Amino acid sequence: MAAFTETLPGVAAEAPAQTRGFRLNHSMLRVKDPAVSLDFYTRVFGMRVLRKLDFPEMKFSLYFLARLEGDEAVPQDAGERLVWTFSQQGILELTHNWGTEDQPEFRYHDGNAQPQGFGHICFAVPDLAAAIRWLDDNQVPYVKRPEQGKMKDIAFVKDPDGYWIEILQPELVADLGR
Amino acid sequence: MAAFTETLPGVAAEAPAQTRGFRLNHSMLRVKDPAVSLDFYTRVFGMRVLRKLDFPEMKFSLYFLARLEGDEAVPQDAGERLVWTFSQQGILELTHNWGTEDQPEFRYHDGNAQPQGFGHICFAVPDLAAAIRWLDDNQVPYVKRPEQGKMKDIAFVKDPDGYWIEILQPELVADLGR
Repeated sequence: MAAFTETLPGVAAEAPAQTRGFRLNHSMLRVKDPAVSLDFYTRVFGMRVLRKLDFPEMKFSLYFLARLEGDEAVPQDAGERLVWTFSQQGILELTHNWGTEDQPEFRYHDGNAQPQGFGHICFAVPDLAAAIRWLDDNQVPYVKRPEQGKMKDIAFVKDPDGYWIEILQPELVADLGR
Repeated sequence: MAAFTETLPGVAAEAPAQTRGFRLNHSMLRVKDPAVSLDFYTRVFGMRVLRKLDFPEMKFSLYFLARLEGDEAVPQDAGERLVWTFSQQGILELTHNWGTEDQPEFRYHDGNAQPQGFGHICFAVPDLAAAIRWLDDNQVPYVKRPEQGKMKDIAFVKDPDGYWIEILQPELVADLGR
């Protein structure tokens, strides 16, 4: 076993050959109103919408978003672009079940209230202070500001559906849990 | 706007400069029994545990897992390794609230039963048929096998807590939603 992996109950000694090439591609969240969520994720977090897929028969649409560094060779052809999208890591899939945006009382469940399950997604940022100013400029609601609570230098904000988004600068949290 | 992004209501014309360097680092799921979940994710999906963090005061532990391709320069030092982990994409964070593994009736909520919210994570695989054989060899329970339902060549399996995991081979789904 590589020395950088942790030896713990349950952990396989090595990655089986049958898993070669497996990639954790995306996480999917349902959203009430895609116009609101797309504004949030493309403007506040700078994600790009690589592909929208419509399924009229089942009355839903899927949106695949990525944070592009700027030098990726993203294919122009829609089919090739979808294949490219599914070959990446760090993709966010938003599912819109048609009509929820017109129901004032409609809410999705964030996973942190009961019943619990899913917790959050996390964006790493190059400069936490600058990112916090940017989030403040955009009136993003906080669960926890970086100076609050036991975990300093880690913030949690909410997306338009109430899903939690962790914000951290990797270099600042090297001693977390020590 | 780059031609490969979709023009849709809400979508920002370009990624703001203030978001430069933001990366979608991880998704967090709560798990009942880490020994069971670590076996599942390290053996069946070949992930590696890059860091375990314990918070005795709050009675929980965090496990950060990655699918390594094999050529990454993962630091040996635990702090540097955590910084490296937070600088990647495609990390899975598992949260264990101590003691849940000893409660026979304890279950987390998968987000697909009511109340809905989070949907699934997805692994892209290089060979769908081989991956399905591997999942079958490991008795992984299915939500949907690739030949079932409207979306051919896409499978959904369940992890030990019941969270859904999508399985797809990118090249096979180029025409999805067309």
